[in-house]
Amino acid sequence: MSNHHTSISAEGLQNVFTRILSNKAFELFVVAIIIFSALVIGVKTYEIPPSMARVVTILDWSITFIFLAEITIRILGEENKKDFFKKGWNIFDAIIVTVSLIPIEDSNMALIGRLVRIFRVLRMVSIIPELRSLLNSLIKALPQLGYVVLLMFIIFYIYGAMGSTFFSTINAELWGDISVSLLTLFRVMTFEDWTDVMYETMEVYPFSWTFYISFIFLTAFAFLNMIIGIVVSVLEEEHQREREAEAKEAGEPTLRELQAQLKEMQAMLQEIKKQ
Amino acid sequence: MSNHHTSISAEGLQNVFTRILSNKAFELFVVAIIIFSALVIGVKTYEIPPSMARVVTILDWSITFIFLAEITIRILGEENKKDFFKKGWNIFDAIIVTVSLIPIEDSNMALIGRLVRIFRVLRMVSIIPELRSLLNSLIKALPQLGYVVLLMFIIFYIYGAMGSTFFSTINAELWGDISVSLLTLFRVMTFEDWTDVMYETMEVYPFSWTFYISFIFLTAFAFLNMIIGIVVSVLEEEHQREREAEAKEAGEPTLRELQAQLKEMQAMLQEIKKQ
Amino acid sequence: MSNHHTSISAEGLQNVFTRILSNKAFELFVVAIIIFSALVIGVKTYEIPPSMARVVTILDWSITFIFLAEITIRILGEENKKDFFKKGWNIFDAIIVTVSLIPIEDSNMALIGRLVRIFRVLRMVSIIPELRSLLNSLIKALPQLGYVVLLMFIIFYIYGAMGSTFFSTINAELWGDISVSLLTLFRVMTFEDWTDVMYETMEVYPFSWTFYISFIFLTAFAFLNMIIGIVVSVLEEEHQREREAEAKEAGEPTLRELQAQLKEMQAMLQEIKKQ
Amino acid sequence: MSNHHTSISAEGLQNVFTRILSNKAFELFVVAIIIFSALVIGVKTYEIPPSMARVVTILDWSITFIFLAEITIRILGEENKKDFFKKGWNIFDAIIVTVSLIPIEDSNMALIGRLVRIFRVLRMVSIIPELRSLLNSLIKALPQLGYVVLLMFIIFYIYGAMGSTFFSTINAELWGDISVSLLTLFRVMTFEDWTDVMYETMEVYPFSWTFYISFIFLTAFAFLNMIIGIVVSVLEEEHQREREAEAKEAGEPTLRELQAQLKEMQAMLQEIKKQ
Repeated sequence: MSNHHTSISAEGLQNVFTRILSNKAFELFVVAIIIFSALVIGVKTYEIPPSMARVVTILDWSITFIFLAEITIRILGEENKKDFFKKGWNIFDAIIVTVSLIPIEDSNMALIGRLVRIFRVLRMVSIIPELRSLLNSLIKALPQLGYVVLLMFIIFYIYGAMGSTFFSTINAELWGDISVSLLTLFRVMTFEDWTDVMYETMEVYPFSWTFYISFIFLTAFAFLNMIIGIVVSVLEEEHQREREAEAKEAGEPTLRELQAQLKEMQAMLQEIKKQ
Repeated sequence: MSNHHTSISAEGLQNVFTRILSNKAFELFVVAIIIFSALVIGVKTYEIPPSMARVVTILDWSITFIFLAEITIRILGEENKKDFFKKGWNIFDAIIVTVSLIPIEDSNMALIGRLVRIFRVLRMVSIIPELRSLLNSLIKALPQLGYVVLLMFIIFYIYGAMGSTFFSTINAELWGDISVSLLTLFRVMTFEDWTDVMYETMEVYPFSWTFYISFIFLTAFAFLNMIIGIVVSVLEEEHQREREAEAKEAGEPTLRELQAQLKEMQAMLQEIKKQ
Repeated sequence: MSNHHTSISAEGLQNVFTRILSNKAFELFVVAIIIFSALVIGVKTYEIPPSMARVVTILDWSITFIFLAEITIRILGEENKKDFFKKGWNIFDAIIVTVSLIPIEDSNMALIGRLVRIFRVLRMVSIIPELRSLLNSLIKALPQLGYVVLLMFIIFYIYGAMGSTFFSTINAELWGDISVSLLTLFRVMTFEDWTDVMYETMEVYPFSWTFYISFIFLTAFAFLNMIIGIVVSVLEEEHQREREAEAKEAGEPTLRELQAQLKEMQAMLQEIKKQ
Repeated sequence: MSNHHTSISAEGLQNVFTRILSNKAFELFVVAIIIFSALVIGVKTYEIPPSMARVVTILDWSITFIFLAEITIRILGEENKKDFFKKGWNIFDAIIVTVSLIPIEDSNMALIGRLVRIFRVLRMVSIIPELRSLLNSLIKALPQLGYVVLLMFIIFYIYGAMGSTFFSTINAELWGDISVSLLTLFRVMTFEDWTDVMYETMEVYPFSWTFYISFIFLTAFAFLNMIIGIVVSVLEEEHQREREAEAKEAGEPTLRELQAQLKEMQAMLQEIKKQ
C-alpha cells in the first residue's frame, strides 16, 4: 500500500517537473542565467579587486548549482531516465555541469575548470531550439564537403612537401618541416603577407613565384567550387521541400491525375461507341 | 464669415504645397541642395583661408534655411499633420533640420553640430525613393540573419574568453581583457596580420595555431552559410513573386481549371450514355 | 561612260575588301599582329641595347602601318562609309591608329604615344567577337548596380567626412581632408593594415573602433547584397531565355493549347448530345 | 598443344589479376600504401638521425616496388594491353613509378627523384574514384572560364605595361619590367600591402591612386562575374540532369502524351458523331 502511494507521488513529482520544463518562463530563466554566467566569465578577464573577486567566485558557484538543479529537473522530468542520455546535447550539458562541480586546487585542474566555465556559454545552443537546428544544419552540410576538403588537403600536402624540400634552407622558421610549411601555406591562402614569403624565396629560386601563384589559383578555385557545391545542394533540397509542400496543398492536381481522368473518359467513349 | 474665408485660403495654401511637392523639379532642387551641402561639408575638411571660411558658414546657414523651408512645405502639404510624423524618415529629416538650427558656441555642441551637418547627406536616402526602397530591403534581410549573428557572437565570445584566459600574460594589448580579445579576433577574421598575432602566442603555447585555424574555419564557415542563406531566401521570394505575376497573366490556365473542364465533359458523356 | 566604268571598278574593289574581311585567315592575321604588338610593348619595358631599340622602333612603325592598312580595308569594305563610325569599337580603333601615326618628339607627347601603343592591346577585344560580347554583358550589368553604388558612396562620404572631422589632427596623411579620408576608408574596406589605422585613432578616441567595425559591416553587407542582386538577375534572365528556347522547341504543347483542344471536344460533345 | 596450354594459363593468370583488381581490400591496401608514402615524405622533411634515415630509404624503395607490382598487376589484368595507356591517369601512374625506379646519384637528378616521390601522393586521386570525378568536374569547368581569363589577362597586361612605363624609375623592384609589374599587380589584386605600393608612387604621381582603384574595380568585377558564370552554368547543368531523371521516373506523363491521348479521344468522338 505504501509502495503504491510512493509510486503515485513519484509520478506526481515527474508531472510537476515536466510542467516546469514546458514552462516558457523556465526556459527564459535558464537563458538569463547562461547570459549572466557569460558576463561573469567576461568580468573575470579584467583585473578586479580581491573583494570583487570573492563576489565573482560566489556568483560562479551559484550558477553551477542553478545549472545542477536545472539538469536534475530535466532528468527527473523525463519519463524514461535512459532517454535523457540518448541526446548529444544532454550529455554535453551533464558533462559541463559535472566537471564544474569538481573543486579545483591544482593549477592544471584550475585551467580545465576555467575552460569548462567558458564552454558553459555553449549551453545557449543546447537551450535555444533555433540555434540547435541551425548548428545541426551546419553539421549536416559538412559530409558534402568531405571529398573537396580531402582534395584540398592533398594539394596542401604536396605543396608543403615541395616547400620544405626546396625552401627549408632559406627560412627554417617558415619551411623547416612539413607541419610548419602547411601553416605557411595556410597563411599564403589567406593572403597574409604572402609576398614577403615569396620575395624571400625568389632571391634563391627566381622562378618560385610559379609555386605561389599556382598554389593560390588551385586553392582559390577549389574554394569557389566548395561554395558553389553547397549553394547548389542547399537550393536543390530547398526546392524539393517546396515541391512536396505544393503537392500537399491538395488543390492543384498532378498531370498523372489528369491522365487517369482522361483514361476514364476514353473508356466511357468506348462504351458509347458500342451502343 | 471671416473664419470660413480663412479656412478656404488655408485649404488653398495646402493645395499649393501639395502641388509643389508632387513637382519633379522641386525634388530635383532638393537633391541638388543636398549634393551642394555634401560638397560644403567636403570643402570644410580642407584648410581654407578665413574669407572662404566665412562664405562657407553663410552657405551652411542658407542650406539649413532651405531645408527648414522644405520641411515646412512638406508638413503643410500633408492633409493630416500628424501623419507626417508617422514615417521614420520624416522624423529623421525633422530632427536633422531642428538640430542644425541650434546656434553652437560651446565646443562640445559644435562637434554635434558638425556631425548633424554630415548626416544631412543621408537625407539623399529619404528623398530618392529608389534608395529608400533599397535600404528598406537591406533592413528586411537583417532579421533573417539574426540567429546566424547570435551563433557567431557565441563563437566569438568563447574564443575571446579563451584568448584572454591563456594569452593575456603574453600580450596584454591584444588579449588583456575580453573586449580587447574580441577586437583582436575580429582582426584575425579579416586576416589582418593574423600570423603576427599567432606567432607571438605560439612561442609560449606551440599548439596555439589550432586556436586560430579552428576559429578561422568556424567563422568563415558560418559566414559562407550566411551568404547562402540570404541567396536562397532572396531567390525563393523572387520566384514566388514571379509565379504570382505569371498567374495574373491570365492567359495560361492552371491544371485545376483543366481538371474542372474535364469534369464538365465527363458529366456530358454520362448524359449521352444514358440517352 | 568613264564614270560608269570607275563606279564598277570601285564596286569591284569594295567586294574584294568585303571578301578579305570575311576571311578567317585575315582575322587570325590581325590577332597575331595585336599579340605581336603586345610583345613589342613588353620588350620595351626591359632595358635593351641601342641596336635592339632601333629594331623595336621599326617593328613599332610596321605594326602601326599594318593597323592603318587594316582599318582602311575595313572602311572601304563597308558599303555605307558612315555606318563604320556608328559602332563604338570602330571609333576606338580609328582613334588608336590615328594617334599612333602622329610623330612624337616632345616628351609630353611621347608619353601619350606610349600610352596609345599600350591601349592597342585592347584592340584584341574589338577584333574577337566573344570578348566583345563578354565585355558588353559586363557593361549591361553596370546600371543594375547603379543605386547600390550610390548608396555605398553615400556611406563612404559620411564616414569620410566624420573621419576627417575627428581624426585629421591625429594623422593628417590618412585623414587630412575628405579625399584622403575616402582613400583611407577604401583601404580599410580591403582590410589592408586597417588595424594600424584603428589603433592610432584609438589612442585618442578609445571608442573609435565602433567607427571601423560599423563601417566594415555596412560596406561588407552592401557588397554581399550587390553580389546577390547580380546573381538573382542573371539567373532570372538565363531562366527566361531558357523558357523561350523550350517554347520554340515546338514539340511540347502549352497548357493553353490543351485547353483549346478540350474546348473543341466539348463543342463536339454538345453536338452529339443534340443528335 | 603446349602453345594452347600456355595460352590457357595466361588467360587464367589474367583472370586472377582481374579478380585482384576488383577486390575492395586491394584498393584499400593501395590507398594505405599511398598514405604511408605520404607520411614517409613528411618524415623526410624533419632532421632525422642517420639510422632513421636508412630505415626511411628502405621504406621508400619498398613503396616503389609495391607500386611497381601494383601497376604490373593492373597492366596484366587488362584484356587488351594497349587500352591501359589510353587513360591519362594510368600514364601518370606509370611515369611516376618508372621515374621512381631510376637510381639517383647526381644531385640534379636527386631533386627530380624527390619531386617524383612527392607527386606519388597525387596517386590518391587516380585510385579513389570520387576524387577522380571531382577533379574531372573541376577541369570541365575550366574552358567555360577561358574568355574571362583572357579578358583579365588583357587588363593585367595593359596595367602592367602602364605600370612599368610610369613607375619603373620610382621602384625598379616592383615595376622594373613587365613581368615584375604583373607580379606586383597580382599582389595588388590580393590586397597584399597594396597601399604601400600605392603611397610610394603617389609621391611622384599624386593621381596614381586612380590607377590602383580602377584596377581593383576591374579585376574584382571580372572575378565576381567569373563566380556567377560558374554558378549559373553549374546550376543549369544540375537542373537539366534533374529534369531528365524525372522524365525517366516514367510515372508522370508529359504534356505531349496528354495531347496524344486527347487526339485519340477526338478521333473517337468524330466516329461517334458519324454514327
